Amino acid sequence: MTGALGEFGLIARYFRRPATRSPLGVGDDCALLAPAPGMQLAVSSDMLVEGRHFLSTVAPARLGHKALAVNLSDLAACGARPLAFTLALALPAVDEDWLEGFSRGLFALADAHGCELVGGDTTRGPLNVCITVFGEVPPGAALLRSGARAGDDVWVSGTLGDARLALEVFRGTLDLPAAAFALARRRMETPTPRVALGLALRRVATAALDVSDGLVGDLRHLLEASGVGATLDADAAAARVALGAPGADAGLDTDLLRLCALSGGDDYELVFTAPAAARAAVERAGRDADTPVARIGRIDAEPGLRIVDAAGAPVAQRFTAFDHFA
Amino acid sequence: MTGALGEFGLIARYFRRPATRSPLGVGDDCALLAPAPGMQLAVSSDMLVEGRHFLSTVAPARLGHKALAVNLSDLAACGARPLAFTLALALPAVDEDWLEGFSRGLFALADAHGCELVGGDTTRGPLNVCITVFGEVPPGAALLRSGARAGDDVWVSGTLGDARLALEVFRGTLDLPAAAFALARRRMETPTPRVALGLALRRVATAALDVSDGLVGDLRHLLEASGVGATLDADAAAARVALGAPGADAGLDTDLLRLCALSGGDDYELVFTAPAAARAAVERAGRDADTPVARIGRIDAEPGLRIVDAAGAPVAQRFTAFDHFA
Repeated sequence: MTGALGEFGLIARYFRRPATRSPLGVGDDCALLAPAPGMQLAVSSDMLVEGRHFLSTVAPARLGHKALAVNLSDLAACGARPLAFTLALALPAVDEDWLEGFSRGLFALADAHGCELVGGDTTRGPLNVCITVFGEVPPGAALLRSGARAGDDVWVSGTLGDARLALEVFRGTLDLPAAAFALARRRMETPTPRVALGLALRRVATAALDVSDGLVGDLRHLLEASGVGATLDADAAAARVALGAPGADAGLDTDLLRLCALSGGDDYELVFTAPAAARAAVERAGRDADTPVARIGRIDAEPGLRIVDAAGAPVAQRFTAFDHFA
Repeated sequence: MTGALGEFGLIARYFRRPATRSPLGVGDDCALLAPAPGMQLAVSSDMLVEGRHFLSTVAPARLGHKALAVNLSDLAACGARPLAFTLALALPAVDEDWLEGFSRGLFALADAHGCELVGGDTTRGPLNVCITVFGEVPPGAALLRSGARAGDDVWVSGTLGDARLALEVFRGTLDLPAAAFALARRRMETPTPRVALGLALRRVATAALDVSDGLVGDLRHLLEASGVGATLDADAAAARVALGAPGADAGLDTDLLRLCALSGGDDYELVFTAPAAARAAVERAGRDADTPVARIGRIDAEPGLRIVDAAGAPVAQRFTAFDHFA
């Protein structure tokens, strides 16, 4: 840590790179972006606060990854192709080791998605990372929350609930074998934004969003936006918990697996809907994007969310969404 | 204050309004923007932290104004027309009085500039306001920092240094008569983004930026980007301090006026350059934008910044820029 590196030195050392997409790059009052002719711009902002979105002990490279990943996940949920992002960063002090790690993790993920840092802000303050991300999508092709129709299947990508299991270990309410904890911790600290899947689902899925506050709570937003209801198979969802697989040897019971899958939070998977006639197309999109997809429910005309077990019987267990102010 | 209003209720009550510019408005994973054909998009992010960018005692409506104003000021400095913004907000608790005031001040300024809130994020955490703003500008018309040429005049808009005088009163290092303090405080808490002037200066100014960290420090960025130097008239700059005018009756001495004008910070005025042949055009841009403009220096081929008095003699006083990490 040093006080000798000022605000502009900090930006120059850790965050300035040759501009490719922006005619200006980092350093003028604004970045200039020239969207491809006719394309719509998808925009999303996420703010990460220490102690709420990440633990103070997280490795800085993983935090750099996660801060961008949760934003790319919003682009994925819209079927948008990542273009660029801005980074606003409040730091308690200039810690060069931290900055080196953070910027390394951030740019590794940015480069993997061709997403360019075009501007931002740095200031002193309680640690806070705010990224705004820009993607492009052809008019009419964006995946919205409002397109689900009765009879559609409900699908989810990847795995659910493992991030929550890691959090419970950190909280001291759960013990896991070392290998299982390492897997869960990776899911919590370095989520994978499902960008390729979002692109592959354009014109296949009828609605989509990303799971950040827990499957049940986020799915309710989709149902409300679409004016429909759903029946959700808690056991099909619980089967998406990586640590619930027999080989994971984590010894987790059904209630805990259901709880983590349905209201765990921090998954950054896509939950999406598609007509039953599109099942083969969805499976193909999953293969093309190298991302597992699984059916976990069905959209109903009747409003509300009904949670059932694998046999179709109602599940009495309660599942709630994460709310930062509840 | 209440805990009953959750994250989504908070957004719905204080931040959701009918969408006009975005096909989606607040509420999907991303906002969608459709830039006008052929236009470039200017993007800027600013993060405001309690105790650094604003005092904890500031009226929430003024903070709402300022958080957007400092971002609009970046668009102004590029000559971009405001379109939309995202808001990410970390709040220690849900305080409805605070939210009512903050959103009222924010939207009053947003509406005055036709700038629409299209998305964002809310979370619990130390008070932090991060806005990313979007504007549009025709290709080649953006005002950059890099266009200043030897022989150009250096101009500044509006007034300088009054925000710093208010800060010194809050710090207890200065006393001001009540009316003078009220004026200075307004400049500190509700700066005026010079959007109309920025638009009027397209194809008139050769370079521009906005003064946020102090005139001298910010001007150096412009000189470096342009590969030139400048001679700055400290007395012409000091004459821009509103509280230095005879009628203000604030009893401030020359050294203090020069210090506040040259390194005060938080001014959000435009400093810009234009050829001597464009003086009438600059004056006309100022009149069209209803914004005072004044010549305060000259661009030199020789690198470096020379600060002189009204008679052209070097000024020995030292002026530094504000640096969040110095």
